[in-house]
Amino acid sequence: MKTTSNKNHRPTLVITMGDPAGIGPEIIVKTFVHAKIWKWCAPLVIGSPPILERTAQALQIPMKIVSVPEYPQQNGQNIFRRGQLSVLDPLERPLGRFRKGQASAVSGDASVRYIQKAVHLAQAGTVHGIVTAPINKKAIHLAGHHYPGHTEMLAALTQTKESGMMILGGPLKIMFVTTHVAIRDLSQSITTSNVLRAIRLAESGLRRSFHITRPRIGVAGLNPHAGEGGLFGDEEEQAIAPAVKRARVTGIRCTGPFPADTLFGKAVSGEFDGVVAMYHDQGLVALKTVAFGHCVNITVGLPFIRTSVDHGTAYDIVGKGKADPTSLIEAMALAAQLSTDKR
Amino acid sequence: MKTTSNKNHRPTLVITMGDPAGIGPEIIVKTFVHAKIWKWCAPLVIGSPPILERTAQALQIPMKIVSVPEYPQQNGQNIFRRGQLSVLDPLERPLGRFRKGQASAVSGDASVRYIQKAVHLAQAGTVHGIVTAPINKKAIHLAGHHYPGHTEMLAALTQTKESGMMILGGPLKIMFVTTHVAIRDLSQSITTSNVLRAIRLAESGLRRSFHITRPRIGVAGLNPHAGEGGLFGDEEEQAIAPAVKRARVTGIRCTGPFPADTLFGKAVSGEFDGVVAMYHDQGLVALKTVAFGHCVNITVGLPFIRTSVDHGTAYDIVGKGKADPTSLIEAMALAAQLSTDKR
Repeated sequence: MKTTSNKNHRPTLVITMGDPAGIGPEIIVKTFVHAKIWKWCAPLVIGSPPILERTAQALQIPMKIVSVPEYPQQNGQNIFRRGQLSVLDPLERPLGRFRKGQASAVSGDASVRYIQKAVHLAQAGTVHGIVTAPINKKAIHLAGHHYPGHTEMLAALTQTKESGMMILGGPLKIMFVTTHVAIRDLSQSITTSNVLRAIRLAESGLRRSFHITRPRIGVAGLNPHAGEGGLFGDEEEQAIAPAVKRARVTGIRCTGPFPADTLFGKAVSGEFDGVVAMYHDQGLVALKTVAFGHCVNITVGLPFIRTSVDHGTAYDIVGKGKADPTSLIEAMALAAQLSTDKR
Repeated sequence: MKTTSNKNHRPTLVITMGDPAGIGPEIIVKTFVHAKIWKWCAPLVIGSPPILERTAQALQIPMKIVSVPEYPQQNGQNIFRRGQLSVLDPLERPLGRFRKGQASAVSGDASVRYIQKAVHLAQAGTVHGIVTAPINKKAIHLAGHHYPGHTEMLAALTQTKESGMMILGGPLKIMFVTTHVAIRDLSQSITTSNVLRAIRLAESGLRRSFHITRPRIGVAGLNPHAGEGGLFGDEEEQAIAPAVKRARVTGIRCTGPFPADTLFGKAVSGEFDGVVAMYHDQGLVALKTVAFGHCVNITVGLPFIRTSVDHGTAYDIVGKGKADPTSLIEAMALAAQLSTDKR
């Protein structure tokens, strides 16, 4: 990826450590040993200095963890250099006891506070963007925070009305109409307004974040063969086609609904700049099949840049040294690129 | 692909022309100009000699169409040589009038009779396998034949109890639990017995057709994250996991249910020999994203080898010279390879 290598022009990014009991600390330490990261950005981690220190030691990665009380002013930027990682801990007192690889109120609450601090810095204009390591839904619920996930938490904290997650992998950029919905409940969520919202978000994300003037958006159908004219389901005729029509009236260059099985292949070959998928696996099967381990999430609609890894806390492998930092590195690269483009 | 190049040992294959109003004749003519096809097999087309002749002329492809009354006996094999294409027409009288690119009883009935003749030859042991060009569901219904598709027709004609379509593309081999079912009706089709049947068919297909002694089969979940422990749907716990368990008791090396989004990536990287997908787009999004235009269907469970193109009659492009023969070429290659392996 191309970003500026002039240290004075590096975008400033905050990285939230995510759930302390998950693989967040490990992928952060593994990410910041890479020299290239330091060329792309001036990074500040929001998280726990002692946990990151212990993680680096356990992995035998030489890295000096520097605890900073607040985001440094302009002249303090020289603290952001390779070999030492600046970490800001927003908690008033040390983190309580919790077990690695298990959901707990302690780790869940900390993960939420890291995000709150990051949002505060981004909204104040202090940093250019936020990159988030994974949080655990069960842990944040145990801590009394009732967000379904990162995206909703960020929308609430910034009072954003319309936001959504776009997932990028290889040549694909996909916006979703629904995410964590059971297949048998899917039909009722495929409404004209939901599809229209996703098309609008896809368009604004492609235009504002990726600077594509009039992005070509392919909209998937819900059913096999996009329903084949009503033979297998009518959501295409009842909800999707009307949403495409309404979006086109507002000047959005979208087409569809197309049979999902051929749509992603067409997007891979460059026929579309982005795709609107109706459900989780429809888009993610395509993404992970072409770009396994290399997908990145970007939240569209927020007042700042936010990218994220495409995986969870992976409690089952915590502390084993097996966590793969690739997705975090790609998320850092994307946030840095988008921040550089924006300035 | 590797097949014998000894003409005397070429497997004999019949190719059904499919719907005369579709792209079948065009892809057949475009396939048999390739020298490699003639090294792989001794091919006999079941279809209409005048239509194939006119198609070759329109495409300006020099090809002599030879009408043969019956499948030639052993010594007659030398008629199968490049530059002339042997075609057997099973109809008693010339094909009636029909319009290209439109479903009609005339073309639908002919397409069924081509298949009946091919099945007759394969069951008599005269040929090693059948390769089918696309038929049109509406056309065969207009002709009074009420099969949902090729696979069901072949099962009925051969009195096969358990058969199913496996689709191959790139490194993926996928068997489906359901095919043309609306998403909102999917849940009720995901039963233990349906999933178990698909696992058994996948196992027998991989073992008998591809000679994998104990194939490793990955079984997909239905819902996002395979339901995440019942959070988004319970078909995994109610139907899929019990089917996997029962299959394992019978010695089948299958595991799952796995989240679909990562399963296909794992299969691409070689972790599984085959995958059981719950529904059409789940498997086909993966297949067509990795092997767009290069997928082949094989019917598992029939008493003979049968492969097929992965596309339809494409009425919209008939007569324009734009039809792509790649899938038919791959279907010929696979049938030839499987026939050679079997002997």
